[in-house]
Amino acid sequence: MDKGRLEAFTDGVLAVVITIMVLELKPPHEATLPALLGNWPVFASYVLSFLYVGIYWNNHHHLMHLAERVNGRVMWANLHMLFWISLFPFTTAWLNEAHGEHGQFPAPLPTLVYGSVLLLAALSWIPLVRSLKCINGGAEGALARALGNNWKEKVSPATYLVAIALAFFAPIISCVLYAVVAIIWIVPDRRIERHVMPNP
Amino acid sequence: MDKGRLEAFTDGVLAVVITIMVLELKPPHEATLPALLGNWPVFASYVLSFLYVGIYWNNHHHLMHLAERVNGRVMWANLHMLFWISLFPFTTAWLNEAHGEHGQFPAPLPTLVYGSVLLLAALSWIPLVRSLKCINGGAEGALARALGNNWKEKVSPATYLVAIALAFFAPIISCVLYAVVAIIWIVPDRRIERHVMPNP
Amino acid sequence: MDKGRLEAFTDGVLAVVITIMVLELKPPHEATLPALLGNWPVFASYVLSFLYVGIYWNNHHHLMHLAERVNGRVMWANLHMLFWISLFPFTTAWLNEAHGEHGQFPAPLPTLVYGSVLLLAALSWIPLVRSLKCINGGAEGALARALGNNWKEKVSPATYLVAIALAFFAPIISCVLYAVVAIIWIVPDRRIERHVMPNP
Amino acid sequence: MDKGRLEAFTDGVLAVVITIMVLELKPPHEATLPALLGNWPVFASYVLSFLYVGIYWNNHHHLMHLAERVNGRVMWANLHMLFWISLFPFTTAWLNEAHGEHGQFPAPLPTLVYGSVLLLAALSWIPLVRSLKCINGGAEGALARALGNNWKEKVSPATYLVAIALAFFAPIISCVLYAVVAIIWIVPDRRIERHVMPNP
Repeated sequence: MDKGRLEAFTDGVLAVVITIMVLELKPPHEATLPALLGNWPVFASYVLSFLYVGIYWNNHHHLMHLAERVNGRVMWANLHMLFWISLFPFTTAWLNEAHGEHGQFPAPLPTLVYGSVLLLAALSWIPLVRSLKCINGGAEGALARALGNNWKEKVSPATYLVAIALAFFAPIISCVLYAVVAIIWIVPDRRIERHVMPNP
Repeated sequence: MDKGRLEAFTDGVLAVVITIMVLELKPPHEATLPALLGNWPVFASYVLSFLYVGIYWNNHHHLMHLAERVNGRVMWANLHMLFWISLFPFTTAWLNEAHGEHGQFPAPLPTLVYGSVLLLAALSWIPLVRSLKCINGGAEGALARALGNNWKEKVSPATYLVAIALAFFAPIISCVLYAVVAIIWIVPDRRIERHVMPNP
Repeated sequence: MDKGRLEAFTDGVLAVVITIMVLELKPPHEATLPALLGNWPVFASYVLSFLYVGIYWNNHHHLMHLAERVNGRVMWANLHMLFWISLFPFTTAWLNEAHGEHGQFPAPLPTLVYGSVLLLAALSWIPLVRSLKCINGGAEGALARALGNNWKEKVSPATYLVAIALAFFAPIISCVLYAVVAIIWIVPDRRIERHVMPNP
Repeated sequence: MDKGRLEAFTDGVLAVVITIMVLELKPPHEATLPALLGNWPVFASYVLSFLYVGIYWNNHHHLMHLAERVNGRVMWANLHMLFWISLFPFTTAWLNEAHGEHGQFPAPLPTLVYGSVLLLAALSWIPLVRSLKCINGGAEGALARALGNNWKEKVSPATYLVAIALAFFAPIISCVLYAVVAIIWIVPDRRIERHVMPNP
């Protein structure tokens, strides 16, 4: 089966997710600098979620580039991943809107939930890759060889777990950790690119 | 006429439908677990509607994969199907928001309407398949042979009808039936896949 | 220049327009039949606007199918058409929400504005076709021959004008006329289809 | 790596951005001409932002048309540009909603922020072009030769800077300058088009 529509649908969902989050950026009622700057956590979380969707799109692009065939199992693994990503606008909005006891910000529980959805999206990557390998040459195929062993795929879930564990003690550190993982990923997956497009 | 744009437009509409439903997931104002868990029916119905859109996308992908030609009749049959799917966010929102007499939840009428739109979307599949068969070799063509006889296409409308009939007596059972149909469909349509990509 | 992206962008905009209109379908607060049926004008106008976007998508599909080349002028003519279509959700919402003096519904001015945007969208079709003819063989080229002379393209603007003129006297008749034009167009543009896909 | 998905994702994001801005066009509650006309600044800013997204889409189309290869760096440069464009709905909404001291409209700070985001989007075009040149033949390649030297790319940021500087003294003139830059750009980039499609 052709991978074109799977890519097109994924592009569509990610494009909508990345842009409906901007609807959360409610303009302040006053035309003053304090009013604008008072919005900074909302803006920061928008940047972070934008980066995460960009990272998933980028990695999906790289991954599908190597795959030649898809099947029903791949399609459902892909939808499963899109499901968790589609929750980013919800967790981002809750992180921004709900303050903890005594006005604590970010609040512990929304910080924990934000990280949990990041973790579940990261884990949903695993069955997607597995189903793609399965139909594209197996553990010894071109896809498996090109992917090799990615340390980032191990570091991210571990960091999310640490951040989730810290959410009730130091939620601000959890948020810093979420940002750190994003920064690690922004460097695109050189493994595949090197494989496909060796520099002259 | 080329089927590419029909697929692209369908992908676009389904991608928007699947993601605007997330706008219904209003984050609770309080950063507490009860506030989050109090949202569970909204979340459950989001999952259900996400699954249904995913199922339609999947089946549409499989169906169009076999078709080689489309015409104006196919395009309108497809738009007709998209119309009913575009109502999913509305029926999902009403199911979530409106409580019945004495606070009954789910309320009977929204449960009935939710199922009726599912039924109408399922029925709109029939003229779409028929118009595609008509232009792709007729009742004896490759499309018709590959589709064969799908028991799911008969079981789903019957189950919806039972669920609709139960809506005023036991709406919670209706909702369970809607979920059961979704689960039945999540197994992708093996008939076409087997036909197109026989396992080695 | 390649027409693929022009089609993809148009598909994207129309897919978003057709589905954000559903956000106007606010579910009633009560779970009762009168509450649902009280929404009927909103629902009717959703159906009408859905049909109009579907018609534009269909005709655009047919038109671009014949075109082989596009240029900057075509791209701006296309964006100009998309602009008027992007106003459909606004005019649909105003038609639904604003009542006239003494609660008159539909109110005259929103009815007039709804029709004016339909008229402007219809008129924006003319420079789009002209710019496409210009770059695809001119007045004697395949595109021009296939398009020929379409009576619908003359009847629609005339009917809109009548409906607009009637908006202050009988807005309900204006709305009926808008629906009549939609029904006329739902029959796809046979001229092009016959040309491209002659029946065997 | 193939440029198709980069184009498709960009088309998706721009299509969503251009159409969610219409959600800002709240229909007036009254069905009267003054109520409609009182909306004119909102409408004018919608037209302006629509034009800007259209310009970016057009120029992106022209640019990618010449490029043959993309890599990870191009993908991030492209996402960076999309980020600033995704803020257009926010800055447009703030410009429309917030009045300055003594009801001044447009208010200075939102005018300044609107222009700053336009400036940052314009500047984000530079690394995108650079990364594309780098992978498509370098400073002497076909892409670099076709792009040549574009005076518009120098005039726009300079004009934005002047408009930003004027925002606190004469915000209305700033807005006029934003419109002037849009009009300059609406003439598509003839350099590339001439290069690719010389008139016979």
